[in-house]
Amino acid sequence: MFKATIEASLLKDSIEILSVLVDEARFKISKEGLSVKAVDPANVAMVSFNLESEAFEEFEGDDTEIGMDLTKINDIMGVAEKNDNIVLELKEETQKMEIHIGGFSYTLSLIDPSTIRSEPRIPQLDLAGQVILNGSEMRKAIKAAEKISDHIMLGIEDEIFYMEAEGDTDKVRLEMTRDQLIDMKAGDARSMFSLDYLSDIVKPASKSNEVELNIGKDFPIKINFEVANGKGIVNYLLAPRIEAE
Amino acid sequence: MFKATIEASLLKDSIEILSVLVDEARFKISKEGLSVKAVDPANVAMVSFNLESEAFEEFEGDDTEIGMDLTKINDIMGVAEKNDNIVLELKEETQKMEIHIGGFSYTLSLIDPSTIRSEPRIPQLDLAGQVILNGSEMRKAIKAAEKISDHIMLGIEDEIFYMEAEGDTDKVRLEMTRDQLIDMKAGDARSMFSLDYLSDIVKPASKSNEVELNIGKDFPIKINFEVANGKGIVNYLLAPRIEAE
Amino acid sequence: MFKATIEASLLKDSIEILSVLVDEARFKISKEGLSVKAVDPANVAMVSFNLESEAFEEFEGDDTEIGMDLTKINDIMGVAEKNDNIVLELKEETQKMEIHIGGFSYTLSLIDPSTIRSEPRIPQLDLAGQVILNGSEMRKAIKAAEKISDHIMLGIEDEIFYMEAEGDTDKVRLEMTRDQLIDMKAGDARSMFSLDYLSDIVKPASKSNEVELNIGKDFPIKINFEVANGKGIVNYLLAPRIEAE
Repeated sequence: MFKATIEASLLKDSIEILSVLVDEARFKISKEGLSVKAVDPANVAMVSFNLESEAFEEFEGDDTEIGMDLTKINDIMGVAEKNDNIVLELKEETQKMEIHIGGFSYTLSLIDPSTIRSEPRIPQLDLAGQVILNGSEMRKAIKAAEKISDHIMLGIEDEIFYMEAEGDTDKVRLEMTRDQLIDMKAGDARSMFSLDYLSDIVKPASKSNEVELNIGKDFPIKINFEVANGKGIVNYLLAPRIEAE
Repeated sequence: MFKATIEASLLKDSIEILSVLVDEARFKISKEGLSVKAVDPANVAMVSFNLESEAFEEFEGDDTEIGMDLTKINDIMGVAEKNDNIVLELKEETQKMEIHIGGFSYTLSLIDPSTIRSEPRIPQLDLAGQVILNGSEMRKAIKAAEKISDHIMLGIEDEIFYMEAEGDTDKVRLEMTRDQLIDMKAGDARSMFSLDYLSDIVKPASKSNEVELNIGKDFPIKINFEVANGKGIVNYLLAPRIEAE
Repeated sequence: MFKATIEASLLKDSIEILSVLVDEARFKISKEGLSVKAVDPANVAMVSFNLESEAFEEFEGDDTEIGMDLTKINDIMGVAEKNDNIVLELKEETQKMEIHIGGFSYTLSLIDPSTIRSEPRIPQLDLAGQVILNGSEMRKAIKAAEKISDHIMLGIEDEIFYMEAEGDTDKVRLEMTRDQLIDMKAGDARSMFSLDYLSDIVKPASKSNEVELNIGKDFPIKINFEVANGKGIVNYLLAPRIEAE
């Protein structure tokens, strides 16, 4: 069984975090809360998302797994005001999710989880460099890079974290010293990423005051941040692009 | 003759009310005010709109009928500020309408009323159920329904007014009890309507605190509300859709 | 050499003033400041723009001429906040412009000025009528005219300045008396202009409280206004359209 009450804005944010990579997702429900792991169709990025039961206004759940269409839930959220509470209730016999917002009740058909791409194995990575920065600062750099290129280099050099994008003729570079960052672990780090993906990922991340980046040398980047006052954890993993000579 | 001064926002609202169904309209002018009856090209919906002379800042009118292009008047309204007064003056000899807004003067060619679809006969209907509710509440339900279907069921059952839409797999339902409504006359009422039309109609209606719905069993719906502090009356009539088995 | 610091909003406005007519521009730099003259590809309009060194927060410049892509600078400006200061520094050896905004540094390739359309000769014109009016008033008239036509007549008649546009069936006219204008020099003035151009030009002009129009009889119009508290001067010259009989 599953019955939970959640704040509209938190549900919206959660859906956005997953929608970055997939349209449908498998939600694992347990007494502890709700978790989702998903990988995008091109196998370039994955997300791991956990929302503890304490992040909900009310939460009752037994071990089960359900599939849901994220676009549909997002559509439904359109009638919710920011401070509305949303009640989700699983109807196991009919495989429907009942969603109550104000006087509205939605009956949403679930998706057979076995038809959704199976949960990825999250690889263990030893990434030398770590940077913690404000999410909106990072978003600004990503948006600036998009103007002139489709990829961006992230790295650490001489205790300076940099994001740099190069177009055919022009270049943009943002440097942040240890003082300008929330925290830094200098290490051998320099990897290039597709702005297509990074731009989508940084959108939900930009709402967070502390975004942790773990960067290696031509390795995937790990982008971690919290939601719901630490009751929710988001981990993105994005594969690097090969740097052209 | 016709010469009238009207508040910009009231003229804008009036044009919007008619534009829902038609691009050109016949305006009947008399000493008492101005009235329009129009039916949409598909014969699915009609509107009857009356604006008493008292709704105008100034009004002088003799019995006459003129045709106007609603899109053009709406374009012209673009230069008006909310509190501007707009002066309309009919130039009978040239069949033009002069419109003054601030320092601007527009000369708008009239349309021969005989070329505009003739005024519909408004049928007498005996509708068993009546509901009065806030226009913005209704709009919210219509918008929610649009996400999953192209038609919506409106009905009264056990002293509860409901709006319900069903898609291929999902369903949304809003229930309102007598307490949540401004007024209700319970009766045998259950009819289905195209959301295409209802969505357009509910836009002007949503500005009104009291929208009166008269619903029957597989009958047209009557949607009535006031504008200009009761000096204007709007009646829409929308044919039902046949419910698929 | 060239190194200058400028307020973000002033740089944005300056780029907008030029972008109306061209995508790339030659900037003449001297100790006195910066100036640009440009003519649109169709030879219908030209702009002369001067920004004194006093308009900058800091300014150092030796006589030189550089070519820049306006679209690119405009894109870069996207990361700037309204009150940001922007540092521009010419790297002569590499023919690049370095642009610093906050922590960001952009390296923008310059364009060889000889590949950009050469500076127009600004003709001496003796225009009989002059009108000074608020830029936003003028913009309103231009926008109203666009609704019904693609050209507009500007003229002075009996101490009244008028802007008038005529479509196939409809007409809009704005009249302003001497009292409604900031200043007027009545004279034989009546010329017709393309709204395409005028609409673009009036956008930057609309931010100015005093826009000076010099109008003749079937002659080009001169549209002058100041930016940066008089430290910058903008002059547009727009050729008339021939009035159809």
